[in-house]
Amino acid sequence: MSAALLHRLKPAVSAAAIRLWSCKPPLIEPTSAAFIHRQPASARLYSGLMASGAPLFRQLFESESSTYTYLLADADTKEAVLIDPVLETVDRDLKLINELGLTLKVALNTHCHADHITGTGLLKKKVFGLKSAISKHSGATADIQLSEGDRVTFGKHFLTVRETPGHTDGCLTYVTDDERMAFTGDALLIRGCGRTDFQQGSPHRLYESVHKQIFSLPGHCFLYPAHDYKGQTVTTVDEEKLFNPRLTKTLDEFVNIMNNLNLPKPKKIDISVPANLVCGLHDI
Amino acid sequence: MSAALLHRLKPAVSAAAIRLWSCKPPLIEPTSAAFIHRQPASARLYSGLMASGAPLFRQLFESESSTYTYLLADADTKEAVLIDPVLETVDRDLKLINELGLTLKVALNTHCHADHITGTGLLKKKVFGLKSAISKHSGATADIQLSEGDRVTFGKHFLTVRETPGHTDGCLTYVTDDERMAFTGDALLIRGCGRTDFQQGSPHRLYESVHKQIFSLPGHCFLYPAHDYKGQTVTTVDEEKLFNPRLTKTLDEFVNIMNNLNLPKPKKIDISVPANLVCGLHDI
Repeated sequence: MSAALLHRLKPAVSAAAIRLWSCKPPLIEPTSAAFIHRQPASARLYSGLMASGAPLFRQLFESESSTYTYLLADADTKEAVLIDPVLETVDRDLKLINELGLTLKVALNTHCHADHITGTGLLKKKVFGLKSAISKHSGATADIQLSEGDRVTFGKHFLTVRETPGHTDGCLTYVTDDERMAFTGDALLIRGCGRTDFQQGSPHRLYESVHKQIFSLPGHCFLYPAHDYKGQTVTTVDEEKLFNPRLTKTLDEFVNIMNNLNLPKPKKIDISVPANLVCGLHDI
Repeated sequence: MSAALLHRLKPAVSAAAIRLWSCKPPLIEPTSAAFIHRQPASARLYSGLMASGAPLFRQLFESESSTYTYLLADADTKEAVLIDPVLETVDRDLKLINELGLTLKVALNTHCHADHITGTGLLKKKVFGLKSAISKHSGATADIQLSEGDRVTFGKHFLTVRETPGHTDGCLTYVTDDERMAFTGDALLIRGCGRTDFQQGSPHRLYESVHKQIFSLPGHCFLYPAHDYKGQTVTTVDEEKLFNPRLTKTLDEFVNIMNNLNLPKPKKIDISVPANLVCGLHDI
């Protein structure tokens, strides 16, 4: 994030509410498919713990597009962020946010979705001062354009941005400050991954993103995807390293799988992508 | 649970795997609707923490009946229990259980469901030594018939049984040993509750159950229902005390609401209830 952007944001955003600054890129350990298979299924695989002092957290689901929206908030300051809101469930989410006494500061998108319209624009109309955020590589309009290593802060917590392109150019993964949770968008799904046959999709880039940016997180880190179609809600790094049917393959095998999925075009892509490029059909 | 039942179970069940014993009934504090409204929204309302040493936990969803199934396991011994399995998702659940290296010991049902067929019978066919458990007041066949204060143990953890009749006579709520999580079946849903117009339903009993047996849990206790129809995944005692549109009413108002819902008969009741009375159409 450039100093200019920070400067531009300052007048509109309370420094206490949202602190965004450049930081060192997250530690990335070299990894490979071979390395993954050498990893034992550690006790961490079975851990269901959340770290002491973790933020309030709620997972919410939109059934038509099978999209997960995530609410995170600081228990003390009550500052909140919402990841991947969906247009149809904005009122449900706002009702919960209001009941919990939270102040929604940022609506984050993991990427420019093709299967549903983001709720970000509508939320901005309904929540005074709310900022939208998305990758600077997404091509979408937003108040905050994020890139590798940026932080989005809510109270004493923050999410660190990891760039994970491959499903689209602008795919991001958001990682909590304690690295106990990561929101992977469509880069990594539970025992799957996002398709790579439209919107700048590249199986080579996706493979590299997952291995370098997601599989380098702690093995017990909970991974929360943007979608699930089988009623699953969460996975871990260790699990996906061992059991993801695509990402445990070699790069060549992965590319071959992804190039031969022969999936139908997403039903809503022609309306969703143009809408999401302008924050969900609504002016921001 | 009687000593006779314990004795009867002993030959079939490993004492190390499943320890069931009588215990003192849980502490129940007198409460009333008026009491609820006096409760402030405490900081606990915002807590997203899970206690250190908590079990592995997974929430799973079956979309046709909007049913949640819950997997709990001890991270060390890998002994697991599954709450409210659904027939159609047995293979998904077993795949996960196997991947995580868990040993499924007990399939628990919160009650005799009317909207789907339990997966318990099929699981028993597929998992050697698996025991089924349900309320002794349910009228259903099972290996273990539970009642108030019983414990179902998996490794160093256990679930305590609280009887919460009203939706049916045999509704149970299962509470984790640290009282951080409770699985409420259809007694309490997120901002709602189960209907009371069939299967021995009684709004009076349901109101008493929720207030005495669920609202007496710690305010920060996470409540996981058997169903949700709006994409919500969890709530807390504090939240429901403040925001449940039915249970925050007086008893008379609640009874009036429940007696005038005019809901259609559940589509699957005529096949689900007879099947669930014998553990899901399958011999046990």
